[in-house]
Amino acid sequence: MSSAYHATRRVEFSDTDMAGIVHFSSFFHYMEEAEHALLRSFGMSVVQFEGEEKISWPRVKASCQYTRPVRFEDMLDIEVRIRKLGRSSVEYEFLFFQDGHPIATGEITAVCCRFSKGEPPKPIPLSESYREQAQQYLKEYVDDPPSPS
Amino acid sequence: MSSAYHATRRVEFSDTDMAGIVHFSSFFHYMEEAEHALLRSFGMSVVQFEGEEKISWPRVKASCQYTRPVRFEDMLDIEVRIRKLGRSSVEYEFLFFQDGHPIATGEITAVCCRFSKGEPPKPIPLSESYREQAQQYLKEYVDDPPSPS
Amino acid sequence: MSSAYHATRRVEFSDTDMAGIVHFSSFFHYMEEAEHALLRSFGMSVVQFEGEEKISWPRVKASCQYTRPVRFEDMLDIEVRIRKLGRSSVEYEFLFFQDGHPIATGEITAVCCRFSKGEPPKPIPLSESYREQAQQYLKEYVDDPPSPS
Amino acid sequence: MSSAYHATRRVEFSDTDMAGIVHFSSFFHYMEEAEHALLRSFGMSVVQFEGEEKISWPRVKASCQYTRPVRFEDMLDIEVRIRKLGRSSVEYEFLFFQDGHPIATGEITAVCCRFSKGEPPKPIPLSESYREQAQQYLKEYVDDPPSPS
Repeated sequence: MSSAYHATRRVEFSDTDMAGIVHFSSFFHYMEEAEHALLRSFGMSVVQFEGEEKISWPRVKASCQYTRPVRFEDMLDIEVRIRKLGRSSVEYEFLFFQDGHPIATGEITAVCCRFSKGEPPKPIPLSESYREQAQQYLKEYVDDPPSPS
Repeated sequence: MSSAYHATRRVEFSDTDMAGIVHFSSFFHYMEEAEHALLRSFGMSVVQFEGEEKISWPRVKASCQYTRPVRFEDMLDIEVRIRKLGRSSVEYEFLFFQDGHPIATGEITAVCCRFSKGEPPKPIPLSESYREQAQQYLKEYVDDPPSPS
Repeated sequence: MSSAYHATRRVEFSDTDMAGIVHFSSFFHYMEEAEHALLRSFGMSVVQFEGEEKISWPRVKASCQYTRPVRFEDMLDIEVRIRKLGRSSVEYEFLFFQDGHPIATGEITAVCCRFSKGEPPKPIPLSESYREQAQQYLKEYVDDPPSPS
Repeated sequence: MSSAYHATRRVEFSDTDMAGIVHFSSFFHYMEEAEHALLRSFGMSVVQFEGEEKISWPRVKASCQYTRPVRFEDMLDIEVRIRKLGRSSVEYEFLFFQDGHPIATGEITAVCCRFSKGEPPKPIPLSESYREQAQQYLKEYVDDPPSPS
């Protein structure tokens, strides 16, 4: 049984556009901020330095489905869950609510990578610490088909 | 046979983040800018005023898949196609290239809506003018299953 | 004797740029967010609707002086004071600190305006409610030269 | 006699806010983009790598004065001049016009710095190449008081 990590975010003025509602791209910022808050709750950061190298989490996929528009100063409740843990990758799911009403759902798939100077980012295995702490937010999800017995 | 609408976009400094590459959310801005350039090429704008009312295109879905990171001052080539035309909705597809290399692909689904003061946005049919001009960028796509003969 | 309105802001990842520090434009967002929090503490909002009209606060000037760079996940303390109250205008001063160290100072001059459809924004007098509540954050400031006695 | 470097910028949808006009912070992006275009015209970039070190231009001051609001799809003409060249610093001036009407003026003061890992940014002298090319955009400006004769 998994639970969700909870974050809240007030809609700021500069998140809106001339249509009077929140610009659709703002939700990707909201998702990322919630993801980073989750990492902080694990005692981690989305960018960690190891000497000359950096460990970070480039995205391979991001998406959002919009149900209801929200406006300046609305307060959003964000539930973060982990759909899937791979060797190096993690797929986050975000549910947005306002006063209990569903607003949007989103997904970000990130890959833990080492950045060495002058080389392309190289995927590395998720740390044990991350993997352990992530369990509490991991949805019941069968990654591989059950093997026949 | 469909063709693509072409746009280009230089990566600006503020599109980057401390990982040294373009922030993933920037691609949603690039997609939207290319969509709006497409609308301008149709003689339209993404927000049109009709007296007290506004016609605009809220998004119901947006997504992006990232293949290769890009950096400050890289020049991106963007191909825009229309995957699907509905009664009120349009699904755009975006292919990003740099020096011929695939960088990312994205999708935005937008719905043409009337915004009247104090009411939720209301979907309205795509205009004839839009529908006609969109044909040139429409992919060969069968929306409905072929009916049996 | 005036006091300051206090706000805090964590530096988010997308506030940074490839130089590894917070992008200078982010401070204008931080200032605006603190200003809007101040307005909320007054029971007001930066955009208020009156029928077909809107009351809002366009800026006539904004500036920022940077003392020390800050980085992702740094927590900023922001002190907001009011330097000057005019008939329609207000000049805010912002002091940024991190762990007690001065980081930046900024100013925004905003003018309370009525936006009527199809007309340029028109300055209107600050409301009594605003003026009264603003006193607590007003710096000892002599707007006019002292008159000779 | 100095001339101006010219840039143009179309107002994008995401530059606007719910007041229906361009968000004031967008002008700082416009200024920076014009500054970077100017550097490119010099054969330079705002971030240059030298081995493990980076040469870049942190800002010590930025400001903008707003005269007239602009809107989505407005095309801005930007004139860039250099007010002052110091040993390590440069003060840019930006004039914004739309259809010949003044819209805004802004200033950015940047300091050429070396970024070495784990140290604070260190100001370094402007390169000869920069200094020479900058002359054409340098306003007639007396930096030092005239010496008595």
